[in-house]
Amino acid sequence: MNWKSEILAAQQRIAGYAQVTPVMESQMLGDPIEIKLEHMQHTGSFKARGAFNTLLSSDVPPAGVVAASGGNHGAAAAYAAQTLGYPAKIFVPELAGPSKIALIEQTGADLSVVSGEYANALTEAQAHEAKTGAMQIHAYDAPATVAGQGTCFAEWEAQGLQADTVLVAVGGGGLISGALAWLQGARKVVAAEPETSCALHAALAAGEPVDVSVSGIAANALGARRIGSICFGLAQGITSVLVPDAAIAEAQKRLWQAHRILVEPAGATALAALFSGAYQPEPGERVAVLICGGNISPDPL
Amino acid sequence: MNWKSEILAAQQRIAGYAQVTPVMESQMLGDPIEIKLEHMQHTGSFKARGAFNTLLSSDVPPAGVVAASGGNHGAAAAYAAQTLGYPAKIFVPELAGPSKIALIEQTGADLSVVSGEYANALTEAQAHEAKTGAMQIHAYDAPATVAGQGTCFAEWEAQGLQADTVLVAVGGGGLISGALAWLQGARKVVAAEPETSCALHAALAAGEPVDVSVSGIAANALGARRIGSICFGLAQGITSVLVPDAAIAEAQKRLWQAHRILVEPAGATALAALFSGAYQPEPGERVAVLICGGNISPDPL
Repeated sequence: MNWKSEILAAQQRIAGYAQVTPVMESQMLGDPIEIKLEHMQHTGSFKARGAFNTLLSSDVPPAGVVAASGGNHGAAAAYAAQTLGYPAKIFVPELAGPSKIALIEQTGADLSVVSGEYANALTEAQAHEAKTGAMQIHAYDAPATVAGQGTCFAEWEAQGLQADTVLVAVGGGGLISGALAWLQGARKVVAAEPETSCALHAALAAGEPVDVSVSGIAANALGARRIGSICFGLAQGITSVLVPDAAIAEAQKRLWQAHRILVEPAGATALAALFSGAYQPEPGERVAVLICGGNISPDPL
Repeated sequence: MNWKSEILAAQQRIAGYAQVTPVMESQMLGDPIEIKLEHMQHTGSFKARGAFNTLLSSDVPPAGVVAASGGNHGAAAAYAAQTLGYPAKIFVPELAGPSKIALIEQTGADLSVVSGEYANALTEAQAHEAKTGAMQIHAYDAPATVAGQGTCFAEWEAQGLQADTVLVAVGGGGLISGALAWLQGARKVVAAEPETSCALHAALAAGEPVDVSVSGIAANALGARRIGSICFGLAQGITSVLVPDAAIAEAQKRLWQAHRILVEPAGATALAALFSGAYQPEPGERVAVLICGGNISPDPL
């Protein structure tokens, strides 16, 4: 697969549909860190990129689209389908939580809440696909999804990214696959996972994708039971770090205190890898952090 | 006063102290709107610019600095003083609310909460200044404050601002003075005030600064009893619009829904002027909105 050309094609395809998200430089940890505010994407996460790229590069059947999701991908798939005029059926696990479930409902999609974890929702979505002929939009392990997520990094470079190293949170691996597909060779990409949901770290240790148990505060976004095969292929040899849940919660607080950025745990995981010391840059190494998701309930509203 | 050179001098002075805040383009209301995310400034509002410029251009006395504030200016003055190593005494009215009061306390400043509205806190601050010799940092009606706030617009133009018209929320008038000082002649500047706190609108109608009553959801940031004299001078002939509190609350919700931007009512007031129809752009008129403050309690954290 020529990922660079796939990503450039995706970028043209989704222009005007996906939000160009802002970037900034922060000194919240001392040395400047470049930050991309991808949680300001439509439906609150990078997932809209992959969803639009998938729909805009496919012949969507009359039964429309189906997706399984911890919440963010479902919201993105439902939003993209609604924007482009297709019916959407979304399966989410209970742990998606009320604010993500409400977000999907607002798109007008047909939503089913499935007991248990993400993998159960995926099973249901696959059954729906088989029964109706609806098109599955995979949350992370499909080339059109990965190419869509890769546009985030192509966009960032066009916005002047200077970092030597880019830290990205990992769940099923779609986002970091996009990062690796675009950046590998030019910049170091570091995978940050919660200790409580670490499908990539476990796969790299085992030498193959393996099932992991999934829990913790970021599970509804990063809680994939098994890393995607595209990601496993692209991620060979990369630096993979684990972050305690407490560091993730602390990173959420610090983002608010420093910059009034309110994000879900997954959105703060890459930053948590930095200030917890899970990833320690070399002297002079310039780092960048992608803020990937903001779907938390803002109680004052 | 040569405002342009004052603002350029301020920009050099505060570089490295004030945050360069990101910009974005949003289609949340259909036609693209340029937005500057100034609520991501240190202490959550543009006020840090004026506070740093004042301290960095002054001989600060041993008694340090004193400020009266609805909350945002006090936090900024306290933060700037702490950063530069000066003692700070801050007076806030009760209506500043717990999250802004906590923000000021975190800086280590000596804080007094005064009953009633902003004007009472200003009286106390003036008494403290007379008694101790501390340097007053006025919240809006001082040249160094205005020049500092003006750097926000110089920065925005350097970031590629294209709009014909820039909408700015008005309380005591420091921010819009900075906007007018930098932009007037080149772009249209529109003042947006809550119906419930509209010192500039009342002054323009009366032909002179007059006292207004102050209430409503944005009062702790925009509730100045009387517009500053610098602002009144600069604002002659500008477009001034009033926004109902309900539209401000709705704008807060829409900013969250569209872009996961969580702001206080003042921060959403300029946007509210647009979608409530209080300000109606001409066909083809390109508009920009400054998001000026984000100090609301983020309950999930």
